[in-house]
Amino acid sequence: MEGKAKTGISPTRAEDFPQWFQSVVRDAEVAELDHVRGAMVIRPWGYGIWELMQRALDDAIKQTGAVNAYFPLFIPLSYFEEEAKHVEGFAKEMAVVTHHRLEQGEDGLLHPAAELPEPLVVRPTSETIIGRSFAKWINSYRDLPLMINQWANIVRWELRPRVLLRTTEFLWQEGHTAHASEEEALEETQRMLGVYREFTEQELAIPVIAGEKPELERFPGAESTLTIEAMMEDGKALQCGTSHYLGQNFSRAMEMGFTDEDGERKLCFTTSWGITTRMVGAVVMSHGDDNGLRLPPRVAPRQVQIIPITRGDPAAVLEAADALRTEIVDQGWAGGPVRVEVDQRDRKPAEKRWEWIRKGAPIVIELGERDIEQGVVTMTRRDDSELRRDAIPREGAAEAVSGVLGDMQAGYFEEASQRLRGRTRDDITTLEGFREFFSGDDTESGGFVKAPWSEDPSTEETMGELGVTVRCIPWGEELASDARCVITGGAAKVMAIFAKAY
Amino acid sequence: MEGKAKTGISPTRAEDFPQWFQSVVRDAEVAELDHVRGAMVIRPWGYGIWELMQRALDDAIKQTGAVNAYFPLFIPLSYFEEEAKHVEGFAKEMAVVTHHRLEQGEDGLLHPAAELPEPLVVRPTSETIIGRSFAKWINSYRDLPLMINQWANIVRWELRPRVLLRTTEFLWQEGHTAHASEEEALEETQRMLGVYREFTEQELAIPVIAGEKPELERFPGAESTLTIEAMMEDGKALQCGTSHYLGQNFSRAMEMGFTDEDGERKLCFTTSWGITTRMVGAVVMSHGDDNGLRLPPRVAPRQVQIIPITRGDPAAVLEAADALRTEIVDQGWAGGPVRVEVDQRDRKPAEKRWEWIRKGAPIVIELGERDIEQGVVTMTRRDDSELRRDAIPREGAAEAVSGVLGDMQAGYFEEASQRLRGRTRDDITTLEGFREFFSGDDTESGGFVKAPWSEDPSTEETMGELGVTVRCIPWGEELASDARCVITGGAAKVMAIFAKAY
Repeated sequence: MEGKAKTGISPTRAEDFPQWFQSVVRDAEVAELDHVRGAMVIRPWGYGIWELMQRALDDAIKQTGAVNAYFPLFIPLSYFEEEAKHVEGFAKEMAVVTHHRLEQGEDGLLHPAAELPEPLVVRPTSETIIGRSFAKWINSYRDLPLMINQWANIVRWELRPRVLLRTTEFLWQEGHTAHASEEEALEETQRMLGVYREFTEQELAIPVIAGEKPELERFPGAESTLTIEAMMEDGKALQCGTSHYLGQNFSRAMEMGFTDEDGERKLCFTTSWGITTRMVGAVVMSHGDDNGLRLPPRVAPRQVQIIPITRGDPAAVLEAADALRTEIVDQGWAGGPVRVEVDQRDRKPAEKRWEWIRKGAPIVIELGERDIEQGVVTMTRRDDSELRRDAIPREGAAEAVSGVLGDMQAGYFEEASQRLRGRTRDDITTLEGFREFFSGDDTESGGFVKAPWSEDPSTEETMGELGVTVRCIPWGEELASDARCVITGGAAKVMAIFAKAY
Repeated sequence: MEGKAKTGISPTRAEDFPQWFQSVVRDAEVAELDHVRGAMVIRPWGYGIWELMQRALDDAIKQTGAVNAYFPLFIPLSYFEEEAKHVEGFAKEMAVVTHHRLEQGEDGLLHPAAELPEPLVVRPTSETIIGRSFAKWINSYRDLPLMINQWANIVRWELRPRVLLRTTEFLWQEGHTAHASEEEALEETQRMLGVYREFTEQELAIPVIAGEKPELERFPGAESTLTIEAMMEDGKALQCGTSHYLGQNFSRAMEMGFTDEDGERKLCFTTSWGITTRMVGAVVMSHGDDNGLRLPPRVAPRQVQIIPITRGDPAAVLEAADALRTEIVDQGWAGGPVRVEVDQRDRKPAEKRWEWIRKGAPIVIELGERDIEQGVVTMTRRDDSELRRDAIPREGAAEAVSGVLGDMQAGYFEEASQRLRGRTRDDITTLEGFREFFSGDDTESGGFVKAPWSEDPSTEETMGELGVTVRCIPWGEELASDARCVITGGAAKVMAIFAKAY
């Protein structure tokens, strides 16, 4: 165990980034694919990260005026009949419940029995069911806006599952809102993308590019899909959160109407928006290194691990460790109380240290008799690539910890921002350059291309060959009137972010 | 709307308790059965209650050293083959996934396609899947105890669904622990029942009787099942939480073993324990009255609703309402910051007042120009059966609110305790008396019988006729050596609590 830990993660990022990702997720005990093809167990350390994400995002969502509720897991098959584009987008990945009991057959084995009169779909997303509840609840303009969020599990059958990134079941929050006007609904769509952006940048220390998805990449049934896109360490894009303006597409199918102030009957304008457990994967691929996970303090289940070195007098060391723990908790940091634990498990100190390094705990403190005598504690900062053991004075150690946590949260964001800036190329103007850039080795040299795009369907083919997609039409970019499409050389319509993606 | 609200809940509790329950749950917008037979939508007000329960219980569970994780929703059918008693208990209520896509048929409609090689069961409980992960994670005694909790949705097909009480899908937490010794596992089983008891009594203001289930009522596969049982307003019992000692039954089937300090290979001893969204129903049936829900302040999504009466100068009234809100938040109460809202919706004040009474908000404050002139606020306490409007001095209103919330939390518990004490009969000694008691009108006169029991299987029949079950063998009861079974008249083995139940 210990030997393996000390050699870090195998393979390294440079050797094989996708495999490195899987090794980190496994070795840091974040999650594992198990039991059912494509299904995932989220282990306590990984779930702890998700819980912190939930808490922060839930608070931010409630701040906007939305409230939480819960809707059924099973959706009648018929609910999907009425929204053609929507069902087209999801039909290939829907798990279907057809029976509601098991019976022992003549072979002595269990078999499904009691067939349902109508098959039930396990929700791949909940527009069709939440919309129908909204239609019942909304009568007048006084009931609008209706803004509801749900934390739930989602099933989309994955043929090529990847832990945390593409799993048959995942966890997410899905917000659904109904408004009296197009303007309000569009505002809501943008507001929520802003909430996601702030959450991703502030909590996860991951900088993003915000924009709109091209038509082909829209949520099935949406009028427009807004997205935030992040760059992983290998230069590939990861979609971090989407917010959809659904227009009246769903409200029309579900007769979700209201009586306006003028007594007229009108259809609602709706939105939906979501963020998933994929974000745990985004944290791994944004900040991890060849020793394992590196967690931004805000989403570290424990920010400081104190390892008592109890060779001589265990009682005195444990007492000192506990006093230090209390002091650090009381000191707090910019993110609130510090999450700190004294690791008293029956394991070797070096083994513990490497475990917490691998798991990405921001600070590891070793404390033994000699440290106590010398009035110091031995600190390892996870953001130090050398992982040096620094002896820092015991007096003022809590203040030091507080400062380091703040620096680390900012430092990880800065590091990722430099990558995003440095590896987003806006100087590629020819198809040849475009091809060359995306044919290179991703991990070392890949990245985003920001370039004018014609939106011409013919560009799909070139992108397809290279495994590239348009990640978004970024906000706030101006396009010169004579801009030429980087792929066709013809007139460009928009500025686009091109990248390979997860 | 308003007229309906003012007349309270129809029918009243005395007229038809089960129907009253359904009306309250609907009219207070707590939850509704919808979309799929037996499936439930938990509306924001009801989900808000559940969120507060989750927060309190999650903290208490983590205090014991357990950590949260997440396991797959789908369980391979084969996982159930190996634990005969377990599958026997659940086979009749398992939803089965057999396909993983939809295709349009020749009839133009959608049909299940892509049959799975092995059907998947939607989890009715997770012992079989979590146990298999445990078996992989546990190697040595150093890995024990392993204590994991999961917040999840559960599916058990219900033939006679009842909102919140018996639904095909419900939400719960399920704890699963593995230990090196029987003693530790038994201790854990008891500790968690203690956590549930404290949670139910302190947070929900519902007193309970703790004890052990008789063999017939045990969790399928358990060695013993501990339970807390509460008495609803109609005298019927509601099981509020269970904690199971599973012995080595599951660890044997799953080969969940560990190497002990002496190098010997041994099987783990396991436990599991859970509490569900049923508890929202327990709150309704413990505290509700003929005007609707009455929420103990600790689980009231909003504890104080301020209704501004804005006939004359809206700005001045809204300003005063907001100042009062801030003062109440800052004042706090025994349970922390006060959850208070100024209800600014475009609705009539009287309509709002009745809505919050129906929804059980502990305190409603009306504040208009006249109140401001007179230096008062108009307060309605939900625990006042007359629902009087009391003018209380504006100065000191926040302190008054703080005190009322504390009194109300204690008062609801005391009221429910009196019911539990007063309607638990320990003076029934004959089968005739037993029959008579349980043949009466439940709502008015029903309750629990505490009496010696022989545990004789023949008593099942008598109990079955009366619709009565043994709710538990209560803790801390002594049995006289010559005690006679209340049903058979033969020698009694234990003291038992008999009741009709939900």
